[in-house]
Order: sequence, then structure tokens, then C-alpha cells
Amino acid sequence: MEKLKEPYLLYLGDVSETLSAKTSIGVAQWRRDCCIGVAKLPDCRVKVENLDVMSMAEAATRGAKTLILGLANPGGSIAASWIPDIVEALNQGLDVASGLHVRLESFPQIVEAAAKSGARLINVRFYDEALPVGTGKQRSGKRLLTVGTDCSVGKMYTSLALTQEMKKQGLNVDFRATGQTGILIAGSGIPVDAVISDFISGAAEILSPDNEDDHWDIVEGQGSLFHPSYAGVSLGLLHGAQPDALVLCHEPTRKHMRHRPDYKLPELEKCLATNIELAKLTNPQVKAVGIAINTSQMENREQAIAYMETVEKQLGLPCVDPGVNGVARIVRNLA
Amino acid sequence: MEKLKEPYLLYLGDVSETLSAKTSIGVAQWRRDCCIGVAKLPDCRVKVENLDVMSMAEAATRGAKTLILGLANPGGSIAASWIPDIVEALNQGLDVASGLHVRLESFPQIVEAAAKSGARLINVRFYDEALPVGTGKQRSGKRLLTVGTDCSVGKMYTSLALTQEMKKQGLNVDFRATGQTGILIAGSGIPVDAVISDFISGAAEILSPDNEDDHWDIVEGQGSLFHPSYAGVSLGLLHGAQPDALVLCHEPTRKHMRHRPDYKLPELEKCLATNIELAKLTNPQVKAVGIAINTSQMENREQAIAYMETVEKQLGLPCVDPGVNGVARIVRNLA
Repeated sequence: MEKLKEPYLLYLGDVSETLSAKTSIGVAQWRRDCCIGVAKLPDCRVKVENLDVMSMAEAATRGAKTLILGLANPGGSIAASWIPDIVEALNQGLDVASGLHVRLESFPQIVEAAAKSGARLINVRFYDEALPVGTGKQRSGKRLLTVGTDCSVGKMYTSLALTQEMKKQGLNVDFRATGQTGILIAGSGIPVDAVISDFISGAAEILSPDNEDDHWDIVEGQGSLFHPSYAGVSLGLLHGAQPDALVLCHEPTRKHMRHRPDYKLPELEKCLATNIELAKLTNPQVKAVGIAINTSQMENREQAIAYMETVEKQLGLPCVDPGVNGVARIVRNLA
Repeated sequence: MEKLKEPYLLYLGDVSETLSAKTSIGVAQWRRDCCIGVAKLPDCRVKVENLDVMSMAEAATRGAKTLILGLANPGGSIAASWIPDIVEALNQGLDVASGLHVRLESFPQIVEAAAKSGARLINVRFYDEALPVGTGKQRSGKRLLTVGTDCSVGKMYTSLALTQEMKKQGLNVDFRATGQTGILIAGSGIPVDAVISDFISGAAEILSPDNEDDHWDIVEGQGSLFHPSYAGVSLGLLHGAQPDALVLCHEPTRKHMRHRPDYKLPELEKCLATNIELAKLTNPQVKAVGIAINTSQMENREQAIAYMETVEKQLGLPCVDPGVNGVARIVRNLA
């Protein structure tokens, strides 16, 4: 996809809780540098720290180039109440990038306003460009892929934390986004679960192309090899990313696979072994370099520490909570 | 997709060798009962045994309902020289079903003729209908999936042979097509490699829904878990099909994975073990019931027999060439 134009104006609409605005909040958290401010309706109760609320006109004056629709309404669609604001942003010359499940083009007023101003409408959950079939050819440069025991266990967060830490250490690194929130944060990427299934590994290949020998792509994982709905996506991404290094992500309080009460989470050891075994097809040198645990739902800090110590001993790999301990110990293991 | 209307008229265009007409020939082979005849251009040198050549008008008079475009031209597109025939078929009221890589709707004359006659244009390599996400829920009835060491090793042929043999034995069975040739033969199905990747396993689930306890769905496999381009499709299909039984298909003279000279074929034992291990996620009772070898490229019959005996001993499963020995020994193993 075309790269999003920066800086961004984050749109919060009328959402009443942070969970519904988590994509916008993610962008504010990871790309604070490229956010001009937030725009919202009067009844929106969500606040984003350190970002001013402003009108579309004010944002345009301050140089905003793209309105980010990083929110979820109950229907998964674009709420009618948001449309006047979206139209106004387009009138002010901003592009609009949406992480929602419906295309911006479904709304005639939006199409009309975009045509008039010449602004772009970008639907990051859809992918319409032609893709190649994966080749499995060895590429130059190095790649790390985050894999998970389940969906939504911290693969994106861990990938972003790794990228940030590696940049801080002066390493040559890029984050490669594969889901809508990651794409809005990175400003580019491919939503691998939205491509035609013949091209999953091809999408991962062009997302992390040949690069300098010391360069790392940190590829955001999707789904899980053990999720009955999405394992095909996970395997295509695993093969196409051709990872040199894997980081396994896990959320220890999860009772069952996300949205699938019949399915238990896999054991960490088995999950990692299966990922390594299957990854060897396209990169026989692949190795696991760390475990990232999201401990935010655990009862207390002591329990979290004890759990991570046990996992670290059991798997013989640095085990951290990226949100608490950072990921420097995993990065050290890349050398 | 909507079921194709029978009977069919097979179109051969101007192709000069049977390989380019293999989809049409496959339909003639497996669905002789529903083929009225063939239509072709004067310079076409391919013959289909026991089927008369006729004009579109004659086919319509004899009751043909669908023109099948089961051929490949060098560009993968629809040749300009075929278009007058396609338009004439539409004028005669026939639907047109295409297994080609371009949509019939890409040609204005075809669109116009279809609009005029009210006939349907069906592109079996594309899938535009909404699909559910896979659930992994246990379904009633039984399922067999053919899996392969590689692409194009006989999974469709084996699936059709199994269905035919089981029907002959009076068993309650349906063939479930997942690729364009299979779909044209069956008259329905879902091209799983053409669906959005989030829905691969969901597609396989609706393709082989709940059924009577003694009913078998024979699901046509796609790709291979060991093919770097397509393994994601194969895994999504494996999980969604939820097979009780697997038949492993192989072509022993293949030097490397199809179109991928860098990739060797997997060992049969490893390939089967990996399929079984991963299939257990959605059906812990899955078992392998047979091996289907396409020996047509082997040097001689003795070599083929010796090879199959070795495999049979090594894997402890009935090993047959469906085109030579039939598949009754595998069907016996289903009981």
C-alpha cells in the first residue's frame, strides 16, 4: 500500500471507552512524534494524554496530513455521526485512513468529498493490489517474527517494543506491520489476513524484502498455528517471513483460544517447537530468541515474576513482559 | 457458489495439445454422463473420445445448459479468438463457466451478451461470496481429505476415484471440490486458494457441513504443507475440513517442489506425520488410511510395483496407484 502521509490527526468519534479507541491510542503511544492532535465529537469521553483536541480546520493549519480512524463502533462499521467530521477532514485536504471493517467508499458523502479535494481514502483492513505467489527464495538481511499461542496476546506490542529497543541501541531495524493497528502505526504494511490465500507467503515476502546484511525486519505475527480459525494465515506468514529469529508471545490467564471456548491454549514448549519445525522449511537456521509474556491480567507482580522465571528455566530463553521489563534481554540474544 | 446447470457443452477453443484442455478433458472423464458434446474452432487438434463436435445452436437444441471453458491458453487469459463462440453460446441461452485466471466480466462483448440473454457468467477461480470465519466446532458425518507431498500429484484424481469407488460400493458419499477443475467436474465447490486468507478454514467448514452419521465427504486437498508458496492454504483446509481420514498423494519422479527448484520433496513418512499432527488440532481422532501414488511417469511397471510395495511396508498403509489399481483397498481401510 501507499505510505500514509504524516503527521496524523487521530479521530475518536463518540466512543466512550478506551478499548473502542485502542487503535488510535496505539498510534498515539507508539508514534507520538507524528501525531498533531485528536479530533472528537462533544460526547466522547476518551482522552489521549499529551495530545490537544482540535477542529479539522485547526489540524489542517497545524500541518496534519491524514485523519486516522482508529476506532471500533459496536457494529464494526462507520457510525453515521462520524461522517460529517470525516467529510470536513477531506474538505480540509486531509487524507483519511480507516482501520474499520467497511470501506470508506461505501459512503457517498465521503467519496464525493474526497473527489472534490483530491484527498486519498485508505482502507488498511483491505488489500486490493496485485501480489506475487511466494517463492521461498532466500533473501538478504535478517528477520524476526513474533508468533503466539493465541490471537491478541501481544505480538504487535512485542514487535514494536523490539523495534524501539533495537533503534535505541543503534541497530539497523524496521517494523513490518501485518494488521490494521500495526499498519496505522507504521504508516505502511500489508494486512495479511485480508489477502487472497494463494498469496499469503508472497505478501510476507514483499513486506520484508532483500536488505542490508546487518538489517533486521521485525515482522508482526498474526493468529496462531494452534488457532482453528487462523492457522493458515499464521503458517503462510511464517513461511513468507523466512524468520531467522522467533519470539513467542503468550498471555497466561487466557482460559481458552480467543472466541473458541472448545480450544485450550497450547503448551508453550509445544507451540514453540511446532513453529520452529515448520519455519525450517524456508529458513533452516531459524531459532527461538525469547519469550514475551503479557502479565497485565495476572493477580500480582510476584505471581508474574514467578511465572516468568519458571518459563525461562523450562525453555532456556529470556522471558520478559515487554510492557514491564522491556525487551533488551531478548535483543541481546539476537547477536 | 451456485450449482452449475447441467448438462454441459465442453469448449476446446483452438488449443493444440491435451494438456491445455486438461480441465475440459477431466470433466469429460469424470462426468461423461452430463456432457452433451464439445465445441471448438476449426484449427483445434484436440479430440475428446465419445463426444461429438457441435455448434452452439446444436448444443442448445440438444439441451446443453452450460458452456465449460476448461482450457488454458499461453497467457492464462481468454483468447480473442474464443470470444465469438462464447458470445454465441450466451446468445443461445447457455450459462458460461470459466476456469481461467481472468473474469468473464473483463470482456464487454461477453457482459453484453449475458445481459441480453439473462445467462449466468461463473468464474470458478474467483470467490466473491461472504464466508464465515472457521469455528473448529465438531461436525456430524465423516470426512476424508487428500493431502500431498507437493502440488499436482493427484489429490483431485484420488478424491474423485475414492468417491466413485465408494458410490459403487453403495456408500453415502460426496466429493467436495476445492479447485477450479474439481469445481467444474462437481458442478459446485469453493476455490479455497481464492478466498480471503482469514476465511480459509471457514470455507472448508461450509464446504463439508454437518451430515448424516454414515456420510463421507471426500474433500479435495490443495497444495502441500511443505510447499513454500501454498502451505497456508493447505493448513487452513486441513483444519477446516476436520478430516477423520487422510490419504497421502505423491508423484515419485518429481525432482523438486513444483515451480520451486530450491525445494526438495518431503519424505513420505515425515509429510504424513506432520499432516496428522497438525490435523489433530480440529480432529484428534484423525488417522491415515492410505497412500496414492501417481506412477505414470515411472520407467516401467515393475519399478512402480516395487516402489509401492516398499512404501506400503514402510508406512503400514495400503498403497495404490488410483489410475492403475483403483482405490478399493483404501476404501476397505475406512471401515
